[in-house]
Amino acid sequence: MTEFELIDRITTEINRIPPVGSELPFIGIGDDTAVFKSLRGYQLATMDALVEGVHFKKQYLDWTCLGWKALAVNLSDIAAMGGAPVYALVSLGLPGDVAVEDVVTMYRGMADLAAQNGTVIAGGNISRAGELSVHVAVTGTVQSKSRVLLRSKARTGDLIAVTGSLGAAAAGLKLLEGTLKADVKEADELIAAFWRPEPRLTIGRQLVAHGVKCAIDISDGLLADLGHLLQAGNVGARLEAARIPVHPAVAAVGGDKALELAISGGEDYELLFTAHPAVMGRVVAAAECKVTVIGVVTRDAGCLDFLEADGRAAALNNRGWRHF
Amino acid sequence: MTEFELIDRITTEINRIPPVGSELPFIGIGDDTAVFKSLRGYQLATMDALVEGVHFKKQYLDWTCLGWKALAVNLSDIAAMGGAPVYALVSLGLPGDVAVEDVVTMYRGMADLAAQNGTVIAGGNISRAGELSVHVAVTGTVQSKSRVLLRSKARTGDLIAVTGSLGAAAAGLKLLEGTLKADVKEADELIAAFWRPEPRLTIGRQLVAHGVKCAIDISDGLLADLGHLLQAGNVGARLEAARIPVHPAVAAVGGDKALELAISGGEDYELLFTAHPAVMGRVVAAAECKVTVIGVVTRDAGCLDFLEADGRAAALNNRGWRHF
Repeated sequence: MTEFELIDRITTEINRIPPVGSELPFIGIGDDTAVFKSLRGYQLATMDALVEGVHFKKQYLDWTCLGWKALAVNLSDIAAMGGAPVYALVSLGLPGDVAVEDVVTMYRGMADLAAQNGTVIAGGNISRAGELSVHVAVTGTVQSKSRVLLRSKARTGDLIAVTGSLGAAAAGLKLLEGTLKADVKEADELIAAFWRPEPRLTIGRQLVAHGVKCAIDISDGLLADLGHLLQAGNVGARLEAARIPVHPAVAAVGGDKALELAISGGEDYELLFTAHPAVMGRVVAAAECKVTVIGVVTRDAGCLDFLEADGRAAALNNRGWRHF
Repeated sequence: MTEFELIDRITTEINRIPPVGSELPFIGIGDDTAVFKSLRGYQLATMDALVEGVHFKKQYLDWTCLGWKALAVNLSDIAAMGGAPVYALVSLGLPGDVAVEDVVTMYRGMADLAAQNGTVIAGGNISRAGELSVHVAVTGTVQSKSRVLLRSKARTGDLIAVTGSLGAAAAGLKLLEGTLKADVKEADELIAAFWRPEPRLTIGRQLVAHGVKCAIDISDGLLADLGHLLQAGNVGARLEAARIPVHPAVAAVGGDKALELAISGGEDYELLFTAHPAVMGRVVAAAECKVTVIGVVTRDAGCLDFLEADGRAAALNNRGWRHF
C-alpha cells in the first residue's frame, strides 16, 4: 500500500461519522492545506515533519537549518495555496543525548525564517523520544474562497509552469550522503538548497492576484507532484524536457543524471502551477522570480507525455509517483 | 536543565526578533494553549504528542485507544482554557512494520472522540520513522478575551478545586507495566482511565459561564500542575490531603500509595481551577461532574503547604514539579 492509498483509507475512516455541530472545512484532506472560514476570509492549516534517519541523517545534521527547514516545508504549503502565514506550533521529539544549545539553535533557525514572513511561533510541545523529529503545524489566511490555489483546478489547454529551478535540493542531499561529488562553490549552493529552501510565499500571492487557480508545491518531485495535479483535475499533461529549468549547479555536477534529479528529485519547494495562456503571459511578465513554462494540460486524464530533448515521447505514467 | 527551563530558553530565543507585520497572540507560549483574535472571538491553538517508549509501550499498545488519547490530551488543553474545539491536524511517525489496519484503527479511535465534540480532523502528515509517534495540533475558540481560563489568574483567597477524581490513569499505567496488581473490575477501570481520558470540555465552558478565570488541566500530576498555577499567579496554596478525591479504584488497590498516585501520578486530564468562594459555591452546585474543593490560594508566593490527614504540614515545594 502506498502513502496515498493509506491516506485514502484514513480519509474514509475519518469521514465515516461527520462530527455533529461542527463547521466542516471548505477544503479538507487532499490539498496542500485544509481551508476553513475565518476572520479575514479563510484560514489555512497544514502540518509536516522532519524525522531523523528519514529526512536527514545525524552525521550531517545542521541544527540552524533543521529549524529553518521544518518551518519552510510548511510555509511552502501555505505558498502553494496562495496564502499568507499566521502562526506555527512545534512538537519536538527529543533524544536524551541532545545538547540544550543545539535545541535552542534549532529554534533560532526557525525564528529567523518566521521573522522574515510574519509567522508567529505560538507554542508547541517537547517530548522525550528515541529519535529526533520536528513536527510543525502552520496556519495561514487567504482572502476568499475564490482566491485560493487548488490542486484540482487544472483545465485542458492551461499552460504548466514552475518557479525557480529544479534538482538542487536532491543533488545537495546526494552530496551530503556522499553519492555525488562537486566543487566547493557548487556544493555550498546545492547543500543550501537542501537545508534552507525559501518558501515561495510572495509569488504564491502574486499568482492569486493574476487569477491563477491551480498550484501545488514540489516536495515529492516535479513528476510526482504534477501527477497529483493531474489526478485531482482529471486531466493529462505534455511536458517538454528541453524546457525543464534544471538548476545550473545540478547541470554542472549532475552529468547525465541532471534531468532526472530535476524531474524526480524532490524537496525543491518550488511552485508548480497551471493557468490559461493569457493569464500565464501576465504572470511570466510580472513575476518576482523566474517562472518557466514547461508544458500544457491535455484532456487525456492521467496521461503524462514527456517529450525528450531529441523529440522522442517517453511514457511516464508510473514514474516518480510514489515516495513512501 | 528541566523541560521548563528549556522552554524558557526557547521562548527567549523565539521572542528575540518579533516577526514584522504579524498579529501577535493575546496569549503566547506558557499557558495550556496559545490565543489569537479570530472570527467568533479568539482562537486557541495547542499541540501535544504521544511517543512510543515514552508515553506508551509496544507490548500494551491499543491502537483505538492511542488515537483516542492523542486527540484527548489536546482537547483537554482546549477544555482548560474554557474553549470549544474546532479542528485537529495529525502528524504520524510510522515505523515500516506497522500494519495498515492498525493505522486505520488508530484514526477510527481518534474520529470517535472527535465526533463526540464536533472536532474536525482536517489534515496532517504521515512520515516514515523508527519509532511510532502521534503529534496532534488542535484549534478551538473562546468568545472573548475575558471568557478564557488562564493559568495566571489565581488570587489570594480563591478556593482550589478539581474535577472528577485522581490517580486512576497513573494506577492504570502501573497495571499495564506490571508494577501493580488489581482485580479485573478495578483493572479495567484503571486501564481505561489511562487509555481513554475524557476531556473536560463541558465543565470547562461551564466554569467560564460561572465567571471562573483560572484553570489548568492535570497532565503532569496535581502537585506539578498546581505548581504551574502558583508560579504563573505569583501566589501560594494550602491543600488538605483528606479532601483530595482519590479515585475509588485507586483507593481500593493502591494501599499506602493511593494518595501519592492521586497527587503526583499525572495524566488524569481533570481540570484544576481556582475561584472566589462565592463563585466556587455556584460552580459546585451546578457542575455537570464531580467538583471537589481541595484547598485555598495563599499570598505566600511559590509556597505549597500540604496538610496531611493527621494534621501535619508537609513542605512540598520541590515535589512532583519536574517531569522531563
